[in-house]
Amino acid sequence: MKLLGRQTWQFADVFLNTAGTAVGPLESEGPLGDFYDKAYNNLHCNEKNWELAERRLMEDAVSSCLAKAKLTEKDINFFLAGDLLNQIVSSNYTARGNEIPFLGIFGACSTSMESLALGAALVDGGYADRIIAAVSSHNATAERQFRYPTEYGGQKPDTATFTVTGAGAALVSRERSNVKLTGATIGKVKDLGIKDPFDMGSAMAPAAADTIAAHLNETGTNADDYDLIVTGDLSGVGSPILKMLLQEQEIDISSNHRDCGLMVYRPDQPVFAGGSGCACSAVVTYGYLVKELEKGNLNKILVVATGALLNPTMVQQKESIPTVAHAVVMEHAKEV
Amino acid sequence: MKLLGRQTWQFADVFLNTAGTAVGPLESEGPLGDFYDKAYNNLHCNEKNWELAERRLMEDAVSSCLAKAKLTEKDINFFLAGDLLNQIVSSNYTARGNEIPFLGIFGACSTSMESLALGAALVDGGYADRIIAAVSSHNATAERQFRYPTEYGGQKPDTATFTVTGAGAALVSRERSNVKLTGATIGKVKDLGIKDPFDMGSAMAPAAADTIAAHLNETGTNADDYDLIVTGDLSGVGSPILKMLLQEQEIDISSNHRDCGLMVYRPDQPVFAGGSGCACSAVVTYGYLVKELEKGNLNKILVVATGALLNPTMVQQKESIPTVAHAVVMEHAKEV
Repeated sequence: MKLLGRQTWQFADVFLNTAGTAVGPLESEGPLGDFYDKAYNNLHCNEKNWELAERRLMEDAVSSCLAKAKLTEKDINFFLAGDLLNQIVSSNYTARGNEIPFLGIFGACSTSMESLALGAALVDGGYADRIIAAVSSHNATAERQFRYPTEYGGQKPDTATFTVTGAGAALVSRERSNVKLTGATIGKVKDLGIKDPFDMGSAMAPAAADTIAAHLNETGTNADDYDLIVTGDLSGVGSPILKMLLQEQEIDISSNHRDCGLMVYRPDQPVFAGGSGCACSAVVTYGYLVKELEKGNLNKILVVATGALLNPTMVQQKESIPTVAHAVVMEHAKEV
Repeated sequence: MKLLGRQTWQFADVFLNTAGTAVGPLESEGPLGDFYDKAYNNLHCNEKNWELAERRLMEDAVSSCLAKAKLTEKDINFFLAGDLLNQIVSSNYTARGNEIPFLGIFGACSTSMESLALGAALVDGGYADRIIAAVSSHNATAERQFRYPTEYGGQKPDTATFTVTGAGAALVSRERSNVKLTGATIGKVKDLGIKDPFDMGSAMAPAAADTIAAHLNETGTNADDYDLIVTGDLSGVGSPILKMLLQEQEIDISSNHRDCGLMVYRPDQPVFAGGSGCACSAVVTYGYLVKELEKGNLNKILVVATGALLNPTMVQQKESIPTVAHAVVMEHAKEV
């Protein structure tokens, strides 16, 4: 059975072979700093503007991923990528450079797991031998596009999250590795009526709750079957809301829930409620969690990337912010 | 064999069951006006702003598609959709309304065939029983976002194309119909160095040529094996360039090439070099070509949706415009 229920996939034979990550200065100073493949000590990442910096991060992540696998771009069937910039422009230009047939994906910060889930389905189904799934975000490009340019110096409330500067890429194939992708749940768009672009955590919690509940229901598993249930970027504000929403459905994730937005920075870093952005779930998952799965320190986890489908024009038109969450199951696979 | 060569899919058992289309006033006055399911006589589509108008068009297209199949939203596994607006916002809000698990896609105007190809692969591989692939575009939302608000009254060169106001949706499943989806080719990002947002046809021709050549090569077919090879929105400027680029590779499509951008409007309509936008290939394919395939007037066609991955910020930063094209093979299937 490849389709469980309405919205969950079960994969027979798909592995995450290698992963690559690249981050900016604040992320490299965070608690997971040692786990990333590449770190820049300047937010410009040695480029002349923010957009080029973000593009370089994605290119770096893909390069690391390929180098570890001792493969080149020509060995990859499809590049599934997305980012937060309008027209997913970091991904488009990275795809122009690597010349891998390109499937552009957009799910805001949920794009990390959307691209991985779709790529895994293509590989599992025999529609690809190898794919790379990649995402990026950059604090300065995101601030300029979604809120105000950082130079403006606008004050932020404590509910705000801080967009992670970084990129993550994963190589997926049927070649055996220590990290097996065993399933995925594609989320529905949920909207609690939040209109405040400085409170994405509250907006996204219902989407995460819906996807987690659907996943457990359709796979017939319980929350405690997973060593960790990791959300993307609910942060300190959204995480308690998620637990409360799931508690109402008698699902208890209080002991094994983690949020990438709270893992990526130290509490004393100046990031308000925590990290966010496509790269938040990607660098934590591909940089840290995958290594723990490889070693067998984790056996089975559910990574639930959360996305706020925020569009400034619609917010100006008094619309609320729709959100979505996509989940992928990752398991430790023993050596043959 | 589901994967042919590097970038082409071969589907065993996937059908386009129903299609829905909705258009604005200029499109309904075009040569294919009678083929669309819904037409508005005003560009606002009875809504109070352009973005809501575009959303309504996509919702209409999905509703028509479902009504013809006598199905409801709950019968669909996944909604694969995208549009030209930042954060594919028309699709996000449509997905919020229909509550179908949502896979957001972005390939600019190539999104029509990207979403159809991915959806067909999911159905063919057993990862979905039924999907809906949908796209939309709106002349006024696109002008405001990519160039200038129409109220500004900027002059345009003859190389400019005119964004189609409309939406198209297709329901795909393994249930037999008269239109079989037999393959797809996912394109690479190509860039000829064009920086002029008023000349998308020239920018996209190399991507179309690359995808068509890859498709013919990987499937071992010739151009004349297809009744029609239909590009999305190369228009009067890009179409001759495409033919020339393919001629250099000894591929002759001069007798069977059509371009949706030239089919959707009459030559005397005020649309410069022709139509463009996600909806251009979608309304022509789902409104007209699919009906010709159903009747058997066409036997086998290749629809090559072309996308200019234009981002205004990057153009201001003197970057050229990357482009991509994705192709889907559609064949007439006889009644059982």
